[in-house]
Order: sequence, then structure tokens, then C-alpha cells
Amino acid sequence: MKKNGHAKVLDCTIRDGGLVNGWDFSEEFVGAVYRSLSAAGVDYMEIGYKNSPELIHVPNAGPWAFLDEDLLRRTIGEKTQTKLSALVDIGRVDENAIAPRADSYIDLIRVACYIKDVDKAIELATKFNRMGYETSVNIMAVSHARENDLNEALERLNESAVDLVYIVDSYGSLVGKDIEYLAAKFEKFAPDKTLGIHTHNNLQMAFANTLLACDHGVTFVDTSIYGMGRAAGNCPTELFIGYSNDPRHDVRPLLDVLERQFIPLRERVEWGYTIPYAITGLLDEHPRTAMALRSSPDKDKYAEYFEKLTTVETHTSHL
Amino acid sequence: MKKNGHAKVLDCTIRDGGLVNGWDFSEEFVGAVYRSLSAAGVDYMEIGYKNSPELIHVPNAGPWAFLDEDLLRRTIGEKTQTKLSALVDIGRVDENAIAPRADSYIDLIRVACYIKDVDKAIELATKFNRMGYETSVNIMAVSHARENDLNEALERLNESAVDLVYIVDSYGSLVGKDIEYLAAKFEKFAPDKTLGIHTHNNLQMAFANTLLACDHGVTFVDTSIYGMGRAAGNCPTELFIGYSNDPRHDVRPLLDVLERQFIPLRERVEWGYTIPYAITGLLDEHPRTAMALRSSPDKDKYAEYFEKLTTVETHTSHL
Repeated sequence: MKKNGHAKVLDCTIRDGGLVNGWDFSEEFVGAVYRSLSAAGVDYMEIGYKNSPELIHVPNAGPWAFLDEDLLRRTIGEKTQTKLSALVDIGRVDENAIAPRADSYIDLIRVACYIKDVDKAIELATKFNRMGYETSVNIMAVSHARENDLNEALERLNESAVDLVYIVDSYGSLVGKDIEYLAAKFEKFAPDKTLGIHTHNNLQMAFANTLLACDHGVTFVDTSIYGMGRAAGNCPTELFIGYSNDPRHDVRPLLDVLERQFIPLRERVEWGYTIPYAITGLLDEHPRTAMALRSSPDKDKYAEYFEKLTTVETHTSHL
Repeated sequence: MKKNGHAKVLDCTIRDGGLVNGWDFSEEFVGAVYRSLSAAGVDYMEIGYKNSPELIHVPNAGPWAFLDEDLLRRTIGEKTQTKLSALVDIGRVDENAIAPRADSYIDLIRVACYIKDVDKAIELATKFNRMGYETSVNIMAVSHARENDLNEALERLNESAVDLVYIVDSYGSLVGKDIEYLAAKFEKFAPDKTLGIHTHNNLQMAFANTLLACDHGVTFVDTSIYGMGRAAGNCPTELFIGYSNDPRHDVRPLLDVLERQFIPLRERVEWGYTIPYAITGLLDEHPRTAMALRSSPDKDKYAEYFEKLTTVETHTSHL
């Protein structure tokens, strides 16, 4: 981290954590998170999705799945030095319904895409750039991208107006040597872009991989409070800020919001390391089957679950 | 890991995990753990302490705090290829009360010591060597050892008959660059010894640090099932075995014992990442104050706890 200066921190608790509880956060909760992140010296707060409700149906979704400006103004009040970020998905956002940055509380729009949609992502992000936003393209499931596809995508991103390019370990399957390899590749093929990393904690590698990426040219990191995020969750904000030697950082405001808001929440909602998430991480798979298992009465039947995931090919070969 | 061949795995669930529940494991539980580790291809099981009850009083300690041969024979039955290990502490063991290895179920005796006692540890371990045991000296709290003391201790260990020398991150305060630095130092000053590592998970670095150590010359690793161990716990056995490409390793028997034995246990007993343990890790301190906090009604008063730990010096300066 030292050799690249201090990394910028983007806390995605409300956005990625919303995947766990259906974005059922009160305005009071989100306001408390914003104030705590501001006092801790966090650079960005990703406060939700900016997808269009006409283009994607999310049953019973809380308001942070479809951000609107009135909600943001009411929740945040006076903005601090902590900027706001929103995520959009390719094909799920009507960019014409989004106000220019001058009229918005949002500063950064991140476009999440799989590798095959990177041209669409660049086109969409470029529109947001022209509207005054900072932009990012987050290539999801990087562990499944084919080598040559990824190289080409990075070259095209490097030529684009996009500000940030993210390494996203969607399945939480990467360890240190993978992070070093990917950081070198991103640096080689997209040398003009600021690089970011978004990790998942299936193998308890989220903080370790984030620190390591910072030693290898990554200068933008995603974190979430208590690691709250889909399935095994993310790199804990309190660890990154607590460990950081950046004089702007202070872990104490995070401790306060942790004990007041996140401990009661964690009693009702599950995220973080469990064996099924470790299994999908080890198998380099999407956690959706593990999430389904954790919501079922069989949530701790690990051996049977592992058997199911690893014997599908054998069964298929008998067909 | 590949460049050094496959690491040997020592599971210390019963010994380090016993620090969490006062070694209150049934013989059935310990037998199930042994059979599961054997089937998973784990090389050693550390089944408890071999301290002498005359030399240390541990209130209400279960039998795994003071191993005796009858207990081991009854619990283990027929031994597999998985060897047994016991830990002893300097000054708490009467070596004359220990049978020679030929008459014992135990194969490896590990001597834990702080850096100042390393000569005592070498003397004691050498006696065990003469009795036929494999031996290890585990230098605890390596993050607090003075550089020159550590170098000299390693030189003396290198000249001794001790088989294994362990890096022990007692406070769970080390990150990747620290592990690389220490592994290089241990390799430099004790080049003739097999090197081991024992990690704690305060900063969610236990598995990451273990993998990294294996890339830097360490060939003996401590793990525990579900990370069960003092405070934030250890490197999870299921992650190390599940990730390993060693053909002897099989994660499935671990999944079985996890769901049958460890999930019910974890309902009653706490270990693993919590904010107070993260705090002592960040401050590079022994977790004892955090363990006391977690046993008190104030267990989630993080901000107040952090304030107490970090303002002691200020208060003292006013005296």
C-alpha cells in the first residue's frame, strides 16, 4: 500500500449487503452508516443500485435497490467529503431516466458486467461520463473469464473514457497468487486506468487479497462493514480502516455503528463464512446453490451438499 | 506450496480449541475427530496438553489438558497413519513422568515458549528427542520478539536436536509482508530445521498467512476444524485440506464431522472473528482482555473497549 500511496476506500455495505436482506434498511440505519463512514475517512459509500424498476423486477425490494434523488437527499442531508456511488447492471438501467451529476447526490456510477458484455458496459459508462459522473466498469466473475477475452476487454477499457476498472472475485475463489497474476494483467493491459478490487470471503481471503492487491498496483478497494455482503460477504471495512496507516482513517466511528446497528442486524440476517460458501469458493462456483441451502432446513448438511455439487458430471455421463 | 512439495498438516482442534471450552470434549467427540482427520489425510492430530497436574492448576479442566496413556488408548483405539501430538509448556511439565515414545501413543511433543525461555525449551525438547519423540519448539508471540533475541534463538535452535521450529502468530496480528519477512528470517538463521507456522484469525488472515508461508519455505502447518481455537481461532482445516492439491487429502470426512459435531458445539461455545479480537489483533496485543469482554455483559461495547485499550498510556502519563 505504501508504495502506491494510500488506497481509496469504497464501502458497499448497503448495496452488496442489500443482497442479503432485500435492501430492507431504514433511512435511519443508512444515515448512520453514512455519518460513520464519513467520520472514519472512507472516500465513497455505495448506497445501492440505480437500476430501473421498469427493467427488472425484484420482489419486495427495499428502496436502496432503486435509488431516487428524494430518498438520497432525505437520508444523507448535508453531504460530507464522502462521495456517493451507485451500481447499475447492463440491460437493467434506463440511462435516460438518470439526472446529470450536477442535479444528483450521486458522484460515481459503477457498471457491473460479465466479460461478454464489456462493450455494452463501456458504451453505458461513457454516457455517464458525459453526464459528469465518475465511472467504473466492474468485470464480474473474473475467475471464469477466458484469458484472451479478458486481455482484449482490458485493452478496450484502457482506450475508453471509463475512470476505474475493477477486479471482481465474485465467487470468492481467488488466493494470493491469483491476485498477483490478475493485478499484473490488469496493469499490463489497462495501464492508464485506476484499478480497483472487490473481494468475497468464501475462503477467508477477502482482507488478505485486498491488502495484497494494494501492494500490486490496485488503488481503489471495496469493503463492507462487518463484511456484510452476499453469501460469505466482503472485506471488512473495520479491518481495512483499522489496519491502514492513512492519517485520514479512524476506526472508532465504525466500532460505534457496528455495536449499535450491525450486531442487532446480524442476529436476524446471516452473512459471512459458513461451510457451504467455503465449498462454492473451493469449487470456484457462484454461491447461489449455497444461498439456497442456507435458506432451507438442510442448511448444515454439508457432506450431502458437497456430494451433489461434485457428482453432477458423473450422473450426466450416464445419460 | 508446490515448489516445496506438499506441507504436513497438524490439526490442533482439541488442544487449541480446548482453550475455548476448558477441554470439555467427550471421548466420542475426540475419537470422531481422529477418524475424520485420518480419513482426510491429516498427518498429525494434537490431542491436548501433556503438562503435569502437579505443576499447573487448571480449574475444571477436561482430561485433554493432562493427557494420559489410558485415555489415549481408549479414545483412539487402533492408530492410523495420523500421528498424535501433545503440547507442553516450559515449567509446567515433569519430563520424568513421561513414558518413552515406545510405550506411548504420542509421536510428537511440542514445547511452547516465549523467546526468553528458548534455552529451557531446547533443553526440554532435547530430553524428549532422547526418549524417541519427534520434537518441536514453538516460539510464541513472535510479533513481540526483539530482532536480535530472535536471531540468536534461531541460531541456537539450528544447532540443537529439535526437529521442528514454529513461527507462532499468537496475537493474530501479522499480515502477508510480516509472514514473508519472518519466513525468510527463520530460513536464514535456522536453515537445517523444518519450519512450521501457527496462525490466529483476528484479522481474518489465518488461512492466507498459512498459504503464503508455504510459498516461502514453511512445510508444517497448524490448522483446526472450523478454525476452533482460542479467541479468533486458527486456520480452518477444511480450507487448507479443501484447497490443497495433495492427492492424499480429502475434504469430505471433515464436512461430515463438521455438521455432526462442530455445528452443535458452536451453538454453545464461541470462537472466531469478532470485533474485540480484531481490535487486539490490530493493536498486536494478547487477546485476554477481549476474551474477558466476550464473557461479560458488555461483550458488544466495542467503542468503549477500544477507548480503554488505547488511552491507558495517556492516563498513566498523568500520574
